[in-house]
Amino acid sequence: MKKKIKIGIVGATGYTGGELLRILASHPEARVTVATSEQSSGKKVEELFPFLSGFYNLVLEKSDIPDLASRADLFFLALPHGKASAVAKALLENGRKVVDLSPDHRLADPEIYRKWYGVEPAPGALLKKAVYGLTEIYRDKIKNADLIANPGCYPTSILLPLYPLLKEGLIDEGFPLMIDAKSGVSGAGRSPEVKLLLGEVSEGIGPYKTGGTHRHIPEIEQEIEAFCGKPLKVTLTPHLLPIARGMLSVIYLKLKAGEKDLSSLYLKYYGNEPFIRILPNGDRVNPKNVRGSNLCHIGVSRDDRTGVTLLFGAIDNLVKGASGQAVQNMNLMLGLEETAGLEGAGVYP
Amino acid sequence: MKKKIKIGIVGATGYTGGELLRILASHPEARVTVATSEQSSGKKVEELFPFLSGFYNLVLEKSDIPDLASRADLFFLALPHGKASAVAKALLENGRKVVDLSPDHRLADPEIYRKWYGVEPAPGALLKKAVYGLTEIYRDKIKNADLIANPGCYPTSILLPLYPLLKEGLIDEGFPLMIDAKSGVSGAGRSPEVKLLLGEVSEGIGPYKTGGTHRHIPEIEQEIEAFCGKPLKVTLTPHLLPIARGMLSVIYLKLKAGEKDLSSLYLKYYGNEPFIRILPNGDRVNPKNVRGSNLCHIGVSRDDRTGVTLLFGAIDNLVKGASGQAVQNMNLMLGLEETAGLEGAGVYP
Amino acid sequence: MKKKIKIGIVGATGYTGGELLRILASHPEARVTVATSEQSSGKKVEELFPFLSGFYNLVLEKSDIPDLASRADLFFLALPHGKASAVAKALLENGRKVVDLSPDHRLADPEIYRKWYGVEPAPGALLKKAVYGLTEIYRDKIKNADLIANPGCYPTSILLPLYPLLKEGLIDEGFPLMIDAKSGVSGAGRSPEVKLLLGEVSEGIGPYKTGGTHRHIPEIEQEIEAFCGKPLKVTLTPHLLPIARGMLSVIYLKLKAGEKDLSSLYLKYYGNEPFIRILPNGDRVNPKNVRGSNLCHIGVSRDDRTGVTLLFGAIDNLVKGASGQAVQNMNLMLGLEETAGLEGAGVYP
Amino acid sequence: MKKKIKIGIVGATGYTGGELLRILASHPEARVTVATSEQSSGKKVEELFPFLSGFYNLVLEKSDIPDLASRADLFFLALPHGKASAVAKALLENGRKVVDLSPDHRLADPEIYRKWYGVEPAPGALLKKAVYGLTEIYRDKIKNADLIANPGCYPTSILLPLYPLLKEGLIDEGFPLMIDAKSGVSGAGRSPEVKLLLGEVSEGIGPYKTGGTHRHIPEIEQEIEAFCGKPLKVTLTPHLLPIARGMLSVIYLKLKAGEKDLSSLYLKYYGNEPFIRILPNGDRVNPKNVRGSNLCHIGVSRDDRTGVTLLFGAIDNLVKGASGQAVQNMNLMLGLEETAGLEGAGVYP
Repeated sequence: MKKKIKIGIVGATGYTGGELLRILASHPEARVTVATSEQSSGKKVEELFPFLSGFYNLVLEKSDIPDLASRADLFFLALPHGKASAVAKALLENGRKVVDLSPDHRLADPEIYRKWYGVEPAPGALLKKAVYGLTEIYRDKIKNADLIANPGCYPTSILLPLYPLLKEGLIDEGFPLMIDAKSGVSGAGRSPEVKLLLGEVSEGIGPYKTGGTHRHIPEIEQEIEAFCGKPLKVTLTPHLLPIARGMLSVIYLKLKAGEKDLSSLYLKYYGNEPFIRILPNGDRVNPKNVRGSNLCHIGVSRDDRTGVTLLFGAIDNLVKGASGQAVQNMNLMLGLEETAGLEGAGVYP
Repeated sequence: MKKKIKIGIVGATGYTGGELLRILASHPEARVTVATSEQSSGKKVEELFPFLSGFYNLVLEKSDIPDLASRADLFFLALPHGKASAVAKALLENGRKVVDLSPDHRLADPEIYRKWYGVEPAPGALLKKAVYGLTEIYRDKIKNADLIANPGCYPTSILLPLYPLLKEGLIDEGFPLMIDAKSGVSGAGRSPEVKLLLGEVSEGIGPYKTGGTHRHIPEIEQEIEAFCGKPLKVTLTPHLLPIARGMLSVIYLKLKAGEKDLSSLYLKYYGNEPFIRILPNGDRVNPKNVRGSNLCHIGVSRDDRTGVTLLFGAIDNLVKGASGQAVQNMNLMLGLEETAGLEGAGVYP
Repeated sequence: MKKKIKIGIVGATGYTGGELLRILASHPEARVTVATSEQSSGKKVEELFPFLSGFYNLVLEKSDIPDLASRADLFFLALPHGKASAVAKALLENGRKVVDLSPDHRLADPEIYRKWYGVEPAPGALLKKAVYGLTEIYRDKIKNADLIANPGCYPTSILLPLYPLLKEGLIDEGFPLMIDAKSGVSGAGRSPEVKLLLGEVSEGIGPYKTGGTHRHIPEIEQEIEAFCGKPLKVTLTPHLLPIARGMLSVIYLKLKAGEKDLSSLYLKYYGNEPFIRILPNGDRVNPKNVRGSNLCHIGVSRDDRTGVTLLFGAIDNLVKGASGQAVQNMNLMLGLEETAGLEGAGVYP
Repeated sequence: MKKKIKIGIVGATGYTGGELLRILASHPEARVTVATSEQSSGKKVEELFPFLSGFYNLVLEKSDIPDLASRADLFFLALPHGKASAVAKALLENGRKVVDLSPDHRLADPEIYRKWYGVEPAPGALLKKAVYGLTEIYRDKIKNADLIANPGCYPTSILLPLYPLLKEGLIDEGFPLMIDAKSGVSGAGRSPEVKLLLGEVSEGIGPYKTGGTHRHIPEIEQEIEAFCGKPLKVTLTPHLLPIARGMLSVIYLKLKAGEKDLSSLYLKYYGNEPFIRILPNGDRVNPKNVRGSNLCHIGVSRDDRTGVTLLFGAIDNLVKGASGQAVQNMNLMLGLEETAGLEGAGVYP
């Protein structure tokens, strides 16, 4: 039996932790050797996640074990914001590679982080070292990185559709980017909160943090500027959907004058990407079609009556929006096949 | 026992028909005396709708019964587009009042109807006679109308939030109105279609008719022009939600320069309306909160970073978006209390 | 305007409290004058329940206000088990009527309560005074009661279908009663618990307290003995459904030998009941058909191949299974029309 | 690149067809070379199933192509009952292997088939040749079979939990087996039927074919007799759940007197099975935990108060209940690793 690379998960009992465990249970080259939880240490993984019964023989441990770094080659951090940086620092100092799923290393400007998150930013040295893990865009940097700032789910579903248009300079910058985004509740985590109860979420759709207050906004704007060289602002309206998984972002924008064959453009950028599919237009871009997969479906529609162009991006917020992209990045960092452990279509219906 | 006004429902076996039956079962002044169905004639109402067991002792009839007009004082037409006008004409000629839930009498311009619906429009005389039944806006006309063109669900959820801003001339007309709208599947009717199966709709959100092709667009634009005197175009993106009932529309727009106290404005327009509630902002405007009621929840959020204003409108697509508003109009046409049969909060959770 | 009877709700912020507020908002003869909450005192009702926006101008208060009894004529207690009895006692001593939605006064035998609930039972005097509020069965006693022990949701959905067979002595007592019961998550309350998150409950069905450990078992067995004079044991398997509201109980039993016209029997017992409907068999007994209503749908199927008879009972766990039946009992206690505030069909679809 | 075994799917556009396509898209040793559909021939697979975009370059064909047998080595038949036998016969005569997902070859006794299905049974020669594909029980026969009668979803979820008790002769035969079974709607297929619309199924649970009329009953009883040598009858109550996938069966039975260590028994039978997990009891046996996987979760609870034993079996109706088990059987028939293409945990949440 082939020797597998050892993987650690710090913060293994939330939904992104569970999803890492799910994906890595079938990974051909890696296996989880340590998984931590402050609240549930001492319990077996399958007590927290009965769906993993029989896949792991692993007991959760507290994360302050002294020899944590020696237990694995690469670590995923699935911690709340403000908690990841210290752990990342210690692991990096011990020569380990780190994929941080928290937002702590995503914003290059510490002041912007401080303003939006209200806590101390990560040390500048770490922020410099961190590579933003939007894999299709930063693939080469990711291969050589020791620390990945794994993107947020909303940014992933928004930036992948926007990238070709921004990179080509096609977007009319005088028109604000308006984004109407919808997320399954797993994006809000596994904490016991009334607002996440099925009784509160089912049979409705709930906008939240309306009026430009969601913390993913600076992350999106940072990357937009990186893509096109200009600071563009976005209006983001997030909604909670009555579903467990899945995310759809619809972006309203105007293109500069002149005919463009957008279909060819998107195929040029993404035609060879293993996890991106370009659909004929927005009409069938539905997160249901990527459920449980690392895929991103993208469609473009154009309203000729009004001149508005609409981009549609659908992902599974826990896979391409979190743990799947994290494993995709891990594969690159470790020199493995980028798609290892991530093949396959979504589970439909 | 008080003598009740006799009501007919033509096309009683779809969801809007069932909702009319539900509402009228508890109406203090009206009772259904005839209900038609081409496909299910001869069956009892409760065979089609077990939820109505014990509420009706009524057998469905074909609509071509010769004396249909003599069977009721007012008729609701819950028919597919293109089928309502001939029935309306015959009933009106017999001195009956008609509330048409189909789109056949909504568009004043027959050419626009022909273009969007692809079938022959209603006769000009009927179009002239018809009053658009957005109750809060056209209340006085409705009281004296014989034929009501009951509004579509999307238009209702969009026009009520827009009306005060349009009426006051506050909207920057150089900026297109972008509307991201989401509907429960009952809005698509009760026909056996694969795309409406639970297997297809659950655990996702499906945009459709993207790029400005939904037939409610001309209806919305007609009323916008009626409200503000200028033709403004809208980009509408409808989505199918994995829920049975409920509709949320989010409208992205820019206001003209200058400070406005929108909260006061909305209270001035709607503060005394029995079925409209103004919420502090968009964050809790959720169709779940109006489920089964005739209410419309409205919220306004403003993104100060980008200057975009967002309107949120939530209704139950089958009540305020169809059969409830139809009964509200009926009440006015018959000189009854406007809220009769429609009181009460939504069913939550 | 008619003077309405004053009603108090102690523990108003859970789902049964919210449902009482919903029903009473439209009640023709009663109005809520005081509503308490330990956690949310000082907040307006609509902050906790946006669906009630505009229906109440009521601020939640702590329940230890000295003059609580003077604030209303009848009180509903929607408190956790073990907390209701002391409040009930104080209110009764002040001459108020009480409908207790908690289990604290349901079990006549304090030792059985102590065994199943693990806390001190209510005083014997209160247990003697309390009338079990299964309205259709104990209507006459309820009219004269000061203290109602409002039934649990599972017992209501199970006892109403069982009553005619038990009362007539038709059930083969040598065969255990097996009950497979399914509940919407609102039955588990509005507390922030991981197991009630949409992420945990959606797209599945979760048996719990299997093997005869649910606390509604002694309540069911007590009433079975009251109905037929003999102690019969039940095996109850509760399940959590991925829906907000609704309950279905399926009861497997054997009848004594001999032909019985069960359809006539059920019509004899329930044909005139305003809230019970007898369906032809079990095939369309679905809580979806009674959603938001005080109705109970009952069906009987018989498996001639095996000789097993199946009873089906469907209710809305928050209405007939809790707050609706509580108001039905209130109506009787106050000499009002039994159906006041409770008319109407369920919200379908 | 390794040469893969060629697979045909006859009837590829229903849910079991789609699931075969999904599983085989990632299969290491097999690939689909032909897929048929009468209604959708000429369309690409991804037009019917957008979730498969980019996974297939395959156009659907009518099944009457003359050289069908030459196009693949093994065929799956995902056809309605009554339609599979003729196709199977032709393919077998051409030396192909066949896994039939329809019920046409499951019942060894043609008269029983005729009685329950109301159409002509398959020829006796085929019935003799067919092996019932409950993999864990008939593994050895399956390896040498040319024609597999793939089990129904209800039977799979019921027979796997029952097998050890029946095989050991532990069940009290004087007590009828009562089975309360719940299925996601995909089990009812992808046909356009009103009763499968989200509007009809959501927010409820619908018993159907109550009183012993479901066609899976003779299949279950046939295998029970095969396991224990005695004809036992079952009462089966199927329910439709408001979910796309997943099945839970709860079996109520009595054991013969005497202590039994059931936990050890189940581990003895299933401890080494790659797709079966024995849980401590019924409390966490939930189809949500096996969603999208070929797993079967089994739990046993005992009600000591009543002496009833409860078995719980959870599967994904489309995987272990249909297409996954079909691929598991294919793997055995082709001499491949039994788990090929089927590894991995379910998608949770």
